[in-house]
Amino acid sequence: METFPNPNPGRDYLIQHIAEEFTSVCPKTGHPDFGTVVLTFVPDEICVELKDYKLYLHGFRNKGIFFEAVTNKIFDDLHAELKPRWMRIETIWKGRGGIRSVVRIEDAVEGYTGPVPPYFG
Amino acid sequence: METFPNPNPGRDYLIQHIAEEFTSVCPKTGHPDFGTVVLTFVPDEICVELKDYKLYLHGFRNKGIFFEAVTNKIFDDLHAELKPRWMRIETIWKGRGGIRSVVRIEDAVEGYTGPVPPYFG
Amino acid sequence: METFPNPNPGRDYLIQHIAEEFTSVCPKTGHPDFGTVVLTFVPDEICVELKDYKLYLHGFRNKGIFFEAVTNKIFDDLHAELKPRWMRIETIWKGRGGIRSVVRIEDAVEGYTGPVPPYFG
Amino acid sequence: METFPNPNPGRDYLIQHIAEEFTSVCPKTGHPDFGTVVLTFVPDEICVELKDYKLYLHGFRNKGIFFEAVTNKIFDDLHAELKPRWMRIETIWKGRGGIRSVVRIEDAVEGYTGPVPPYFG
Amino acid sequence: METFPNPNPGRDYLIQHIAEEFTSVCPKTGHPDFGTVVLTFVPDEICVELKDYKLYLHGFRNKGIFFEAVTNKIFDDLHAELKPRWMRIETIWKGRGGIRSVVRIEDAVEGYTGPVPPYFG
Amino acid sequence: METFPNPNPGRDYLIQHIAEEFTSVCPKTGHPDFGTVVLTFVPDEICVELKDYKLYLHGFRNKGIFFEAVTNKIFDDLHAELKPRWMRIETIWKGRGGIRSVVRIEDAVEGYTGPVPPYFG
Amino acid sequence: METFPNPNPGRDYLIQHIAEEFTSVCPKTGHPDFGTVVLTFVPDEICVELKDYKLYLHGFRNKGIFFEAVTNKIFDDLHAELKPRWMRIETIWKGRGGIRSVVRIEDAVEGYTGPVPPYFG
Amino acid sequence: METFPNPNPGRDYLIQHIAEEFTSVCPKTGHPDFGTVVLTFVPDEICVELKDYKLYLHGFRNKGIFFEAVTNKIFDDLHAELKPRWMRIETIWKGRGGIRSVVRIEDAVEGYTGPVPPYFG
Amino acid sequence: METFPNPNPGRDYLIQHIAEEFTSVCPKTGHPDFGTVVLTFVPDEICVELKDYKLYLHGFRNKGIFFEAVTNKIFDDLHAELKPRWMRIETIWKGRGGIRSVVRIEDAVEGYTGPVPPYFG
Amino acid sequence: METFPNPNPGRDYLIQHIAEEFTSVCPKTGHPDFGTVVLTFVPDEICVELKDYKLYLHGFRNKGIFFEAVTNKIFDDLHAELKPRWMRIETIWKGRGGIRSVVRIEDAVEGYTGPVPPYFG
Repeated sequence: METFPNPNPGRDYLIQHIAEEFTSVCPKTGHPDFGTVVLTFVPDEICVELKDYKLYLHGFRNKGIFFEAVTNKIFDDLHAELKPRWMRIETIWKGRGGIRSVVRIEDAVEGYTGPVPPYFG
Repeated sequence: METFPNPNPGRDYLIQHIAEEFTSVCPKTGHPDFGTVVLTFVPDEICVELKDYKLYLHGFRNKGIFFEAVTNKIFDDLHAELKPRWMRIETIWKGRGGIRSVVRIEDAVEGYTGPVPPYFG
Repeated sequence: METFPNPNPGRDYLIQHIAEEFTSVCPKTGHPDFGTVVLTFVPDEICVELKDYKLYLHGFRNKGIFFEAVTNKIFDDLHAELKPRWMRIETIWKGRGGIRSVVRIEDAVEGYTGPVPPYFG
Repeated sequence: METFPNPNPGRDYLIQHIAEEFTSVCPKTGHPDFGTVVLTFVPDEICVELKDYKLYLHGFRNKGIFFEAVTNKIFDDLHAELKPRWMRIETIWKGRGGIRSVVRIEDAVEGYTGPVPPYFG
Repeated sequence: METFPNPNPGRDYLIQHIAEEFTSVCPKTGHPDFGTVVLTFVPDEICVELKDYKLYLHGFRNKGIFFEAVTNKIFDDLHAELKPRWMRIETIWKGRGGIRSVVRIEDAVEGYTGPVPPYFG
Repeated sequence: METFPNPNPGRDYLIQHIAEEFTSVCPKTGHPDFGTVVLTFVPDEICVELKDYKLYLHGFRNKGIFFEAVTNKIFDDLHAELKPRWMRIETIWKGRGGIRSVVRIEDAVEGYTGPVPPYFG
Repeated sequence: METFPNPNPGRDYLIQHIAEEFTSVCPKTGHPDFGTVVLTFVPDEICVELKDYKLYLHGFRNKGIFFEAVTNKIFDDLHAELKPRWMRIETIWKGRGGIRSVVRIEDAVEGYTGPVPPYFG
Repeated sequence: METFPNPNPGRDYLIQHIAEEFTSVCPKTGHPDFGTVVLTFVPDEICVELKDYKLYLHGFRNKGIFFEAVTNKIFDDLHAELKPRWMRIETIWKGRGGIRSVVRIEDAVEGYTGPVPPYFG
Repeated sequence: METFPNPNPGRDYLIQHIAEEFTSVCPKTGHPDFGTVVLTFVPDEICVELKDYKLYLHGFRNKGIFFEAVTNKIFDDLHAELKPRWMRIETIWKGRGGIRSVVRIEDAVEGYTGPVPPYFG
Repeated sequence: METFPNPNPGRDYLIQHIAEEFTSVCPKTGHPDFGTVVLTFVPDEICVELKDYKLYLHGFRNKGIFFEAVTNKIFDDLHAELKPRWMRIETIWKGRGGIRSVVRIEDAVEGYTGPVPPYFG
């Protein structure tokens, strides 16, 4: 994934990218799932290039994967790539059979004392 | 209720399922009640399978049960089944005679120190 | 169905009852369907008593019937009962598998020249 | 009801007063009903003074009267008082037992050819 | 006021009843006031029966009483009746002369350490 | 009022200016009234300059004048100034004592056959 | 595509299916497009089975096709299949580079004189 | 400014008055400013009478004063008058040149430990 | 401007492109104007390529031009380019000094009898 | 940038300016970006004059600069100019390729103990 240097690494600040057109496939039924992926992070040395991040998300288009698993995978992939000071991934899914779902993961590096947004937003 | 293994038990994270088509019956008047059931939890070893959870909720369709009682029962049933690290059930009811109601129950296992969403949301 | 005399049969005017808590059962899957039933009519000699109309709608709660069929049946039942100068039934259904549906039937008695609301509202 | 002269009787134009705090009493159950009364008219020689119109509407506060009857009565009272070129009364009622209602009456004097708003708005 | 036993007194949880059709009378002008009464409480031994609570609120329909006084009175009446572990009354009033008002009272029993919703919300 | 030449007088087209910050004074109570003034017209030879139009509207800030009268006056002033092919003035007033009002005037020059927007919008 | 008999072919009435999770691929850039497909029709002898219609729409998931072409193709496919008395397809696309698009096609069989909804809704 | 005694001075509770029709004049350009004034306070011995408070706010109608200065002045005037246990003034201004503004001041008496609403919102 | 062949010239149907990020410059004050440009047309032989249309709109970014003039120019440019059977341009502008504006132009080729959307939408 | 003296430097209070019409240029693609800039600060000795602040923001209209960099630059420029006790800049960007972005920076002077709004709002 293409990245670029954080223009101000001396400062703790938040970046949020809201991708409203995410789709993957339910591994059980084979039906497509549609949702929104919200990435929020405090950058350390690098930021993510938006076009490449979009292509990364497009990579799930035909993958069979559950809500919980895909959220954990996106968190792990981006955390390994960006090595942020703090990061959260929230996935918000359209209804299936009258039930809408949300999954939310966040983590800070040890010793991080900067700003953190409230938990459910 | 069918469940599946938590894909990442080493991490405290939140799952939320919003069922907007819940209906039961008022035991006093016999009239149907309509509402939304919001389940939020931090999974421990297992997650709940959505199709089965939906069928569990459908089981209340013709039961006569008060708002307060059904919320306590759903909490107890799911807590016994999922044994989550933290759980909340919120039921949001459509108006009866000009009054709308909400009931909210939450609980954490002892020693849980992970994330908790703000109380009313 | 209980009715009461139109308080002003000398005038063509519109009455609309919007029932937002309708539920029936899909005859194919056995899953519950949820929707809104909008009845609009120009009364002739009688109006419908609301409590009885509500009980009539509750009668579909555990019936297996398709969207198109239940809309036609409600139209026919009410038309036979109320003998209105003009009538429309619109059913608006919550999503199933990402698809929301609407069915709309209307009819006037021959020679009716009174007010008619625009078709889709 | 206090009125004042139409400042421009040579012109057909519309006046609309939307009273969102109307309440009367259901004659069957004795429970209060709450709704909105929308008066729209093309004045002829007189307009209605707002403070007096408000007091007229307050007069229904403790009257037992059905939706259909109160709408016909308000129409008749105002029509007799204002003698407008065209008039409509729409009453929009809050839900009772999951059903919201609307009643709408309109009428023009013979030969009126001025503007008329679309039927349901 | 009719009450019924708390189905789970061993647990601290929240019940909220939102009555959107409250009306009383301004003691200064004699004009009606319209508002919403939000009751939120953690039940101890009893819950409030909704039909009776509605009738209690209807009792203010023709009483002349200020916003601040009626909110204090509803709080005191319900607190004496329900003896809850924690309680809040919020009244939200429609505009008068371009000004909308809100009054909010809350209180916990001594030693209560259970959940409390955020203050304004 | 400053105007400028219609850039395309060979064509019938619509211009609409929505002024949401209009205020005048009630001649009966001396209290300020607040509203929105919507001007819609088909220009003939001239268009209205916005800054000057705004100043014209500011001229009513401390004038005592009723809703119906001020709408007629704005219509007459602008019609005399702009000589449009078609024009409508709609004034939409904030609530007074629980009643919101709308006044609407429109007129076309004789023989005008161009576009006309629907009456209530 | 699976269909079922129109339960009331003696009547002209409208059926609408709103599929909010449509996705195809831009043939020029290879990027995915997301949109909503609204099918409205007056059935003649048959109605469309929803599950099969959903699968038909899923068939475009990985096809490269422009907005205008896919709307024409869905119209033609469904028209050939359902042979309705009247039909409309509207596709509503999410933004690309700050521009959102809509395409709308409708057609009636010759001699059809039944209800038709207003053009843009 | 007319006041009346706090009906329950033994209790810390919140009163909020939202005046949505405030207007003053920009001292630099002479153009009118429009905004909302939100007063929130914990009363001590007195409450503010709404009609008089409205007249106080009307007093700024033709005063030239900046956003920041008028907010400070309203805070100081009301604080001196009401001597509340805690008070906040928030002014919310309509856009000027594409920029909307908010100013917010709050203060508690020393030793106040009662409820305080969250800062923005 | 790049175009592509209408995929179905044998049919009258509507295409709409909504560009919400249009900006030009006021020729009088030099301040930027922001608005939305809605293009609706019935294509004849060609459709407009979206990327090129976007670049065409970007060309106004630093041009000094009034609301009325820019709407006429966009209409003329696109009409000359696309030669549609029917076309409408609507520009919707953000507020300036408390006034929001809309300009709307439409035209059909002679003899066009296909669908036309309602005038103000 | 023109400033004026804080009318009440003895008090910690918040000022917020929301500029909804910000535009700059993407340095990679050359395409314009559109967004909202929210400045919130606790003034020390000076406040910012709105007209000048607007011109400062207009200065980015044709600059090629990334989301993260422009947010840091605005924060640094205003902090150096206003020397506030506390300041936050939040930039909220319209979608690009289906992804919307937000960047948020805040900082207090050492020893500041006044009010701070919640982090994400």
